[in-house]
Amino acid sequence: MKKTRAVALDIPNIGTHHPASQQVFAWERWLAHQILVLLGRPPVSLVLWNGEEIAVAQGKPVARIVLRRRAALYRLITHPDLHFGDLYSTGGIEVEGELGELLDSVYHSSRSTEGAAVRHWQSRIFTRPRSNGLGDSSGNIHHHYDLSNDFYALWLDREMQYTCAYFPTPAMTLEAAQIAKIDLVCRKLQLRPGERVVEVGCGWGGLARHMARRYGVHVRSYNISHEQILYARARARSEGVDNVAYIEDDYRNITGQYDAFVSVGMLEHVGVEHYRGLGEVMHRALTPEGRGLIHTIGRNRSAPLNAWIERRIFPGARPPTLREMMDIFEPREFSVLDVENLRLHYAKTLEHWLARFDQHTSAVESMFDRNFVRAWRLYLAGSLAAFNSGTLQLFQVVFTRGTNNRLPWSRAHLYQSEGGGHSDQPL
Amino acid sequence: MKKTRAVALDIPNIGTHHPASQQVFAWERWLAHQILVLLGRPPVSLVLWNGEEIAVAQGKPVARIVLRRRAALYRLITHPDLHFGDLYSTGGIEVEGELGELLDSVYHSSRSTEGAAVRHWQSRIFTRPRSNGLGDSSGNIHHHYDLSNDFYALWLDREMQYTCAYFPTPAMTLEAAQIAKIDLVCRKLQLRPGERVVEVGCGWGGLARHMARRYGVHVRSYNISHEQILYARARARSEGVDNVAYIEDDYRNITGQYDAFVSVGMLEHVGVEHYRGLGEVMHRALTPEGRGLIHTIGRNRSAPLNAWIERRIFPGARPPTLREMMDIFEPREFSVLDVENLRLHYAKTLEHWLARFDQHTSAVESMFDRNFVRAWRLYLAGSLAAFNSGTLQLFQVVFTRGTNNRLPWSRAHLYQSEGGGHSDQPL
Repeated sequence: MKKTRAVALDIPNIGTHHPASQQVFAWERWLAHQILVLLGRPPVSLVLWNGEEIAVAQGKPVARIVLRRRAALYRLITHPDLHFGDLYSTGGIEVEGELGELLDSVYHSSRSTEGAAVRHWQSRIFTRPRSNGLGDSSGNIHHHYDLSNDFYALWLDREMQYTCAYFPTPAMTLEAAQIAKIDLVCRKLQLRPGERVVEVGCGWGGLARHMARRYGVHVRSYNISHEQILYARARARSEGVDNVAYIEDDYRNITGQYDAFVSVGMLEHVGVEHYRGLGEVMHRALTPEGRGLIHTIGRNRSAPLNAWIERRIFPGARPPTLREMMDIFEPREFSVLDVENLRLHYAKTLEHWLARFDQHTSAVESMFDRNFVRAWRLYLAGSLAAFNSGTLQLFQVVFTRGTNNRLPWSRAHLYQSEGGGHSDQPL
Repeated sequence: MKKTRAVALDIPNIGTHHPASQQVFAWERWLAHQILVLLGRPPVSLVLWNGEEIAVAQGKPVARIVLRRRAALYRLITHPDLHFGDLYSTGGIEVEGELGELLDSVYHSSRSTEGAAVRHWQSRIFTRPRSNGLGDSSGNIHHHYDLSNDFYALWLDREMQYTCAYFPTPAMTLEAAQIAKIDLVCRKLQLRPGERVVEVGCGWGGLARHMARRYGVHVRSYNISHEQILYARARARSEGVDNVAYIEDDYRNITGQYDAFVSVGMLEHVGVEHYRGLGEVMHRALTPEGRGLIHTIGRNRSAPLNAWIERRIFPGARPPTLREMMDIFEPREFSVLDVENLRLHYAKTLEHWLARFDQHTSAVESMFDRNFVRAWRLYLAGSLAAFNSGTLQLFQVVFTRGTNNRLPWSRAHLYQSEGGGHSDQPL
């Protein structure tokens, strides 16, 4: 503990160009060694600023992490999760080898090691998750989703789905898998023509358009991202979808009664302390026989999001465990009907996103800069590794009121149209 | 509080034949009224020992609860859940009208009323759930499952499944629906020929026989009920199923490594305080790519089991919430893949059981006595009402280790053979 504290005090000196010698001191070699131990001894090496290579695992490393300056070492030891991302983005760290392989090996090795506990402790000391009160949420969401519709259009599918797709077969295209996801959500909600649906956190509005067009329901979709709402409205207009209203407002302000409540990819941003309130919103909004679906990134065990992603990419985000999610359902006695874990579908989705992103890096660099490209690539590759290693989950939870007996007899109806019948065209 | 305490002190005098007058005092009329208020004002009436009828709901009552003696009133007010069952079983209470309708209306009215909180508080004061330490479990299970194989054979299906069946269509027979349940469990576990399966709490062994015969796996099935184990062994022998070993021992004593872990209808008897230990057993028993399934009665919100059932029918039982179940999965980072709530399937199962039981009441009475028949009928009808009203749930939870990536791409495979193709014969 003392050691870490002393290092932390040195931080003000680092990150600036100072005329330090290239020399590596004995304790610095020891610190580099400790970083690899904390990460669970992955098959990677650290290359120090004098060219010296440190490894703790046997055999040839799958990748080398090159620390260009002494400062990088001190920042890594205080908080590897946070500073690796920042250093990599700005070029203070280079990776020799495949970034994906490096991340995969670190995610795999750092599971179930004592290092995980230490890193968790560091994460609690050196970072503080942001709040999602009514005022904060807006800033946090703006940070991410208002970046630029054109940026996301470069590498998302045609329906602009920035959430996990659903691949009934792994060879399905991303375009088809996103429509398959949208339609799976509709089937799980058992939408019937003429029903009223409320959606919270609607992204660019693709799910709402599909529900209105294919299921004949009336949709009110809430979102606090101004850019996304403008896009969603324009697109619904141009496609002639007229029974969808896109509303620029917080989910806590929804009014009216609905036959279905749906949220795809919002819960990660809600904050566990607001789950009970979300349950109250659902209780207010749902009819006695109303159904609901929440689609969210999750955890098998409670933990904050990777600190760098929480800081730089998704401010305020936290993927919940199923236990934490019960704060939404229990107080008002909602009944959980169905939970499906689509973890590997998110890994597959991220593979597609990363490949598309890589095809457009020069366009992204001209929109932003080189650091942005590196940061975003790290985020996509890191998320891919997190889903592949089982560090993150994807839960779809279907629920209804505890007293509703109008339920389907089995889930067979979800799979009647499935199994390769999907095309790239909207259904 | 004072009032209840005073009433409790009177209890030693009641239940004996004493020459009390038929007179009903004003406070007794008030107490009868309060009982109906605590139950959420159901459309039923209380008929007192002098023939006077008390009701709080408008309209014609669906049933009348006849209190034959003054003592019944005092016992009901101290703990309606517990004493209604005892009084009904022994004839101290009669029901005029359909028992099922009475129970349905009480279950529906007593949800979400302040009465529920009071009754919960009474239940905590006047009863104490039994423990399920290694010593206690044996006594608790003996109480119920060793009653007599002949008794259960009267009203269970041919496979002696004393757990929720699965009705892909509601018109399916009980025989077919129990086999459909067994096979659904096998499909959810993705059993492959030659694999090793461990089952904890195997009842009369029907699932194990099906797994061995239809899926070609090697099964070790644990159970602490001596009667059930003898039956299971004899039946496997007579049917020529030789790759199942039925072991009379506690689940905590299982040894070996298995590709699948399955438990149908045992968790209700495990006790929440032992869930973490159950997770340890699973962790010890499962291979890296092992899968598991737990099938259990559950709750939407934490609450003890109905006190009378917990005392007289299922000593030590407690249906968990999904939140409580996470104590099994989280500590060892098991990943929940699939949760299905089959609540209405248990209501349908109980309809079948109750109808069959009613066809054999004289046989049951000759095995035991009239009180036993009344108690058991109340238990079946009460459970039916509890599942119909949403007071109890039935969860099937599929899980694997968090690091296992050998997962099916969708759940479509569960439904490929389903939809009316089942017959009454084993598959």
